[in-house]
Amino acid sequence: MIERAVILSTGDEITTGKVLDSNANYLADKLNEIGVDLVAVITVGDVHERLEWAWRTAMDMADVVLSTGGIGPTADDLTTETIARLTGKKLWRHEPSVEHMRRLFESVGRVMPENNIKQALFPETAEVIPNPLGTAPGFRMPVLMKDHTAHLVVMPGVPREMKPMFENEVIPWIRQNRGSDKIFATRIFQTFGISESGLDQAVAGLIRPEEAKVGFRASFPQISMKVMVEDAPGRAERRLEELSERVRARVGEFIYAEGERSMEEVICELYTEKQLKLAIAESCTGGLIGHRITNVAGSSNYFCGDFVTYSNELKSGLLGVKETTLREFGAVSVECVREMAAGARAAANAGVAIATSGVAGPAGGTPEHPVGTVCVALDSESVKASRRFNLRGNREWIKLLTSQVALDWLRRYALGMPIGESALFRK
Amino acid sequence: MIERAVILSTGDEITTGKVLDSNANYLADKLNEIGVDLVAVITVGDVHERLEWAWRTAMDMADVVLSTGGIGPTADDLTTETIARLTGKKLWRHEPSVEHMRRLFESVGRVMPENNIKQALFPETAEVIPNPLGTAPGFRMPVLMKDHTAHLVVMPGVPREMKPMFENEVIPWIRQNRGSDKIFATRIFQTFGISESGLDQAVAGLIRPEEAKVGFRASFPQISMKVMVEDAPGRAERRLEELSERVRARVGEFIYAEGERSMEEVICELYTEKQLKLAIAESCTGGLIGHRITNVAGSSNYFCGDFVTYSNELKSGLLGVKETTLREFGAVSVECVREMAAGARAAANAGVAIATSGVAGPAGGTPEHPVGTVCVALDSESVKASRRFNLRGNREWIKLLTSQVALDWLRRYALGMPIGESALFRK
Repeated sequence: MIERAVILSTGDEITTGKVLDSNANYLADKLNEIGVDLVAVITVGDVHERLEWAWRTAMDMADVVLSTGGIGPTADDLTTETIARLTGKKLWRHEPSVEHMRRLFESVGRVMPENNIKQALFPETAEVIPNPLGTAPGFRMPVLMKDHTAHLVVMPGVPREMKPMFENEVIPWIRQNRGSDKIFATRIFQTFGISESGLDQAVAGLIRPEEAKVGFRASFPQISMKVMVEDAPGRAERRLEELSERVRARVGEFIYAEGERSMEEVICELYTEKQLKLAIAESCTGGLIGHRITNVAGSSNYFCGDFVTYSNELKSGLLGVKETTLREFGAVSVECVREMAAGARAAANAGVAIATSGVAGPAGGTPEHPVGTVCVALDSESVKASRRFNLRGNREWIKLLTSQVALDWLRRYALGMPIGESALFRK
Repeated sequence: MIERAVILSTGDEITTGKVLDSNANYLADKLNEIGVDLVAVITVGDVHERLEWAWRTAMDMADVVLSTGGIGPTADDLTTETIARLTGKKLWRHEPSVEHMRRLFESVGRVMPENNIKQALFPETAEVIPNPLGTAPGFRMPVLMKDHTAHLVVMPGVPREMKPMFENEVIPWIRQNRGSDKIFATRIFQTFGISESGLDQAVAGLIRPEEAKVGFRASFPQISMKVMVEDAPGRAERRLEELSERVRARVGEFIYAEGERSMEEVICELYTEKQLKLAIAESCTGGLIGHRITNVAGSSNYFCGDFVTYSNELKSGLLGVKETTLREFGAVSVECVREMAAGARAAANAGVAIATSGVAGPAGGTPEHPVGTVCVALDSESVKASRRFNLRGNREWIKLLTSQVALDWLRRYALGMPIGESALFRK
């Protein structure tokens, strides 16, 4: 029965700080999602006695030990032999894995180096987990401890290979052995325009602790909320949908997506579907909005271009911002961004345009326009919106938050929703 | 004598995967730099018996235990009381810390909540480490073990507060107690245009293992090389400078900075100093170059603007790319980017302009222009350069690598170096 897990991360590249261990974070998140208690994460370098200590400790503490790394072809890859030694098992050679590796090397026109055979050696009681994306297969192996069975799960360290292996081969197996016939049904709501604590308060009382687990995750500037229902298959999904309806009814205005989707992906889909043409005019965000828009494949379907007019000369010359506007109101003004947006839309012959101008700091602030003063405008035939914000944070945050406001306005415009009225900025 | 360290990361937010533990990576890197052996990283949630186990284990194994997190004001912040219980020490109240917290709250017009007093309680043998940037001070405390002394170092979990505390208060103390009168002198070389293994090969034999430790770190698209000399103060720095000269002589053409500096920071300094004015024209990079340029405070001194001409209409209408060029050579051609760069320079009245156009994929590739085909051009009065590249990778990588090539060209232009001749792309 699998209730408690330990994650083992091994490798000198982690203990010398050369590589950030993102695998542990990924596995912790997934374990939490399927209701397995993560007792500890233990990280050690490629040193015999430290590896032995780490494995012994982990087996003592956990029903399942998830290990990443240390199964490559080189001399400092010690995971498999450490396990064999600790458990007193012999190593045997798994011919299908040898064949798989040979074919992989052949497919790129190379001969497999002999030291790769090492990756096809497994402790005798192990069950091999194939690795379609790389040379090193993983394995799973039960070890009888004094008062429990510790299941060892050994996976490659490369995230691109480890993640599909974990999701396709390990999670289903853990679910089956969780000592429960219940499953977890999960939904993530992506929000913008409300703070983490604001969202927490808004949904307070909506879902009782015995109905579902609710978690929040703030990854600036995006706040997501996860709802997890544990119940029998079928019933879990139905109850999740019912709870999701409650969430949508309460905070739907802030939800821009369900599932792992970004604001720019949502916009790409909306604008492509509605055949809208977009132009951008940026000052303080310096190209970030265009960069985010074009991170999504297919953005060329609707995105015409972006006028990053950092100098006032370009604001006038390119976008037709009037000299009097710049003189009377300055470049950081709703008057200026309105003209920038209108000018960008006309110049690109687009249906809608968004414009930003502001003081990203740390220098350049004045008493009337302190650092964080940002103006945003949207311009289309039928809708014209503009607003001045007072944002807080460093240069990077102000740029990012401004870009998120702009993208959210574009999303709201495409959906015919009111613009510029999100609770985060309401006083 | 401090030779072996253990890092303790605590908090449910880490064991549930809500937060990625970047503190451990930062500390591991710094420990490696000052020659302390990191035995293990142990991570546990906010659970009494797990914290006790983790602390006991860490004290057994290490001369110094570095802990982050768990010293906030709330009930699940258990670090201090766990240590007091394990070591049998009473807690006492450190009045200067109480005062410091009161002043911090007053400075933002608030009254300090009473539960904050908890953060000013320390085990009786602890030495308080002030935290000028936050409410929770850290502390240091020696614990006598059977065969060694374990020094506990407790720091806040917020990286912004932890890092200066570690660098200003903990590193100097570790250096003094490292049981060696030698120090580590360190230099980082930032390179572009050569692969990690290429750099490794290029400097092979240049520095003998007994002269210095050499490490590489690839953080796409940037490869850095670190040289660490352990020797007596004064002598270490002199020997490092001598080794650095060897490195510069061998691979100087790829080094764009020494120390923790980005390409865009180097450019900001160069262009400001030389009073150059820059314009950009982007197609496939979609605004990323402008975004990176404007991430540096002070970029408005030299950056005029960025024409993100995603559509062919804008390439012609805005930058004057000829219809015949687009028809005969297409938008992804050196002919097109040359005209884009020239057009951007004229339109912005700038001294130099850079332009990009390419197929970032995953769709849009053709037999003549497969995904990864990217053209870059630089235009100034005296220098005109253009080139076609065949890059590999996903959309994000191609955008990022193209932006790095463009920035590197701008750097080389400002320094009067030849452009477009870096080994990474040489055949």
